[in-house]
Amino acid sequence: MRTSLLTAALVLAFALPAQAATPATRIPDTALARAARLQAQALQDDTGWRVVQSLTTEVGPRLAGSEADARAVAWAQATFKALGFDKIWIEPVTFPKWERRSESAEVLGAHAQPLRITALGGSPGGTVEGEVVRFDSLEALQQVPPGALAGKIAFVDVAMPRSRNGEGYGRVGAKVRGAGPSAAARAGAIGYLMRSAGTDSHRNPHTGISRFQPGLTPIPMAALALPDADQLARLTTLGPTRVRLALDCGWNGEYTSYNVIGEVTGRSRPNDVVLLGAHLDSWDLGTGAIDDGAGVAITMAAAHLIARLPKEQRPARTVRVVAFANEEQGLWGGRAYVEAHRAELPRHQIGAESDLGADRIYAISANVPAYAEAAMTQIAQALAPLGIRREPPTEGCGSDLSPIHTAGMACAELAQDASRYFDYHHTPDDTLDKIDPQALAQNVAAYVTFTYLAADAEGGFGSTIVAPAADK
Amino acid sequence: MRTSLLTAALVLAFALPAQAATPATRIPDTALARAARLQAQALQDDTGWRVVQSLTTEVGPRLAGSEADARAVAWAQATFKALGFDKIWIEPVTFPKWERRSESAEVLGAHAQPLRITALGGSPGGTVEGEVVRFDSLEALQQVPPGALAGKIAFVDVAMPRSRNGEGYGRVGAKVRGAGPSAAARAGAIGYLMRSAGTDSHRNPHTGISRFQPGLTPIPMAALALPDADQLARLTTLGPTRVRLALDCGWNGEYTSYNVIGEVTGRSRPNDVVLLGAHLDSWDLGTGAIDDGAGVAITMAAAHLIARLPKEQRPARTVRVVAFANEEQGLWGGRAYVEAHRAELPRHQIGAESDLGADRIYAISANVPAYAEAAMTQIAQALAPLGIRREPPTEGCGSDLSPIHTAGMACAELAQDASRYFDYHHTPDDTLDKIDPQALAQNVAAYVTFTYLAADAEGGFGSTIVAPAADK
Repeated sequence: MRTSLLTAALVLAFALPAQAATPATRIPDTALARAARLQAQALQDDTGWRVVQSLTTEVGPRLAGSEADARAVAWAQATFKALGFDKIWIEPVTFPKWERRSESAEVLGAHAQPLRITALGGSPGGTVEGEVVRFDSLEALQQVPPGALAGKIAFVDVAMPRSRNGEGYGRVGAKVRGAGPSAAARAGAIGYLMRSAGTDSHRNPHTGISRFQPGLTPIPMAALALPDADQLARLTTLGPTRVRLALDCGWNGEYTSYNVIGEVTGRSRPNDVVLLGAHLDSWDLGTGAIDDGAGVAITMAAAHLIARLPKEQRPARTVRVVAFANEEQGLWGGRAYVEAHRAELPRHQIGAESDLGADRIYAISANVPAYAEAAMTQIAQALAPLGIRREPPTEGCGSDLSPIHTAGMACAELAQDASRYFDYHHTPDDTLDKIDPQALAQNVAAYVTFTYLAADAEGGFGSTIVAPAADK
Repeated sequence: MRTSLLTAALVLAFALPAQAATPATRIPDTALARAARLQAQALQDDTGWRVVQSLTTEVGPRLAGSEADARAVAWAQATFKALGFDKIWIEPVTFPKWERRSESAEVLGAHAQPLRITALGGSPGGTVEGEVVRFDSLEALQQVPPGALAGKIAFVDVAMPRSRNGEGYGRVGAKVRGAGPSAAARAGAIGYLMRSAGTDSHRNPHTGISRFQPGLTPIPMAALALPDADQLARLTTLGPTRVRLALDCGWNGEYTSYNVIGEVTGRSRPNDVVLLGAHLDSWDLGTGAIDDGAGVAITMAAAHLIARLPKEQRPARTVRVVAFANEEQGLWGGRAYVEAHRAELPRHQIGAESDLGADRIYAISANVPAYAEAAMTQIAQALAPLGIRREPPTEGCGSDLSPIHTAGMACAELAQDASRYFDYHHTPDDTLDKIDPQALAQNVAAYVTFTYLAADAEGGFGSTIVAPAADK
């Protein structure tokens, strides 16, 4: 995210002298009126709910590369069709396949008892047994001399804070998951355990991808459910605590999945694109309702409302929805999209990704140049009835769109309330019942409003791969 | 419960002519003053918390008959000793041993996906595969003609309501668990699935004991987590849904555990007993924090506060705390206690059991005769500062004390707020973090108040195995 912000800032700096010549982007009154009608319709429409219910029920968990991955691709094609999209196609995405077969952990000895764990994505298999050494920070583990943990299992026990914007995940949870295993391996540990990157208090551990730095020998790595992390912490205060960690999982060849793409053709500039993204894959533990069935449903349902309009009422530009393959294990779909679309990247006017659950959107932010400021204010005003306000830009784009954002596409962030998100994220508890249908409809209403207005705007929002002056 | 209420009513009816001759039970002012001091101490004391933390951490899950059962017995003896009880002993309890080794379920076919289930206690092992037939009530399953479900898996999908007094468990949850499997077997089903008897929305199914009626061939029986019950219900609306249920579990010989008993000797009537009960065993999925580590902790901590008093300030009667063996699989400890104590049953003045979690007590109820009414009012007034009010008697005694209550011992019910209890009950989520230390201390304060006043009362509370006139 830092890189893309930096890129944007540099681009902006170099672009400044030319901006005086760029006409202000403006949104026609007809577009504002149509967007208001679409917004009202969306709040009464249950398409989003039906889509996420269908995906999570009929396909269920859909780990990238699993049998269900192919079923998800077929489902997405059929759903785009049923929702009346004009063009539907798939694009291959090839990646290494990781499999989870079985996993368990137990405390040995005088306080023998099972622990609820789940392997981190990318973990090698193996059964290890050793004394647990607890660290109350990632930094404490990183300071251990090489080899000092020989024969031991490292346990990083750091609580991730809850917040509306979910910042604790990147700052704490994902960081411990990303950097902890390599630090443990470097210190000679035979296994890695971490307090799950989550904010709940249930016996459902949080998985997620991790990778070892080059040159290190991978060791089994797993996350403890939050109550189990508490329990293991208490046990280590009683005396030396031995744990057996048994994982049967690992990388196993390659798999080719697909980005599934649906388009609603624009009225007058059909080759220009507003890009909506979400990811089709999920982790295997839950049914991927909030991560990211909801995002797939929100973006599909928003574009569907536009697809139902008479042709002459469509926005000028094409609305393209991408259900990305394998986001979870390294943005494989998002990166493949950029490669496959290099030639037409300049046609992408702006994008938005939905991948932070299904709770209400409370803010919109976008780092736009001065010529697009008035149009962005119009969009924010159109979103205000939904309880959404404009906030200063904080990040780049959603995960799948970050590669194309880095390549220069402008992005808007429709920020969802993530207060509950990390209670369920990457756990067995990511299921349909966690979605509030009314909050989901508010998301669809926000996306259809933003999408219509952006796609019908006269002018751009700062994509450096599109020439704003040529946008008329 | 119906039987014991009926018994109590009959006993009361026959006892009426004699009541005019029974002097009113009264509680001395010195007792009221001492109980008030104990109550204040209890609210500042963390003994209860330390006890339940120790049991759930050091022993952890303690399924009756498992390796941890013996560790729990040793723990209880050591804890009674550390808490300063005057007498500590164990009494054998022999029962059939049930083991859970592994369990899984999955939807087969076009919507293939795993389901989160847990075997009901008492289930035979076995792997069955068949089409699911859903019933929206127990009665609907019970009306199926014999043999009509041949080759099918019966699925009873009834939601259990949440309530403060937990009545939905007996009325709905435990009833579906108790009677459903036999109804399914009678209809010829090869397996039984039920929506868990719980009020949560997490992927942690609720286990619990069930038994087949005589003459029926047991079939594998399991509970679905609530989100999985929702999912299976949706899937059955899409078309025929086949499920594979694989349970490795079953009865396996006999085991002898122990009721663990601790006493604080009474000042002047040491052979008379106020009986406090809770159960030491737990289900295997969680660490038995709210069911019933909390009850063990509350009763132990309350009696401990009395044990700390100078001998001359002790109540007249002895306070006996029983940590019962194997409540979960059929009140084995409670029944063994009655058998072992037949000769001294008349010495039990009154009893109370703590087995509905760790949330605050909001009411006291007791079905006492007229001569004890004024004393019970004194006790209720002493509990009022804790937010506890007197309510009409609704039930018999807690589970472990129900056999001795049926035999005639008077009981008081200190009713806990059970609103959250069935979110965690019998699931992996029954862990220490679900206990609020302050609510636990309020429980201890209530128990020590009740116990001191009952044990120091001049007169009885209606036990038909104690002669009130001889109580002076």
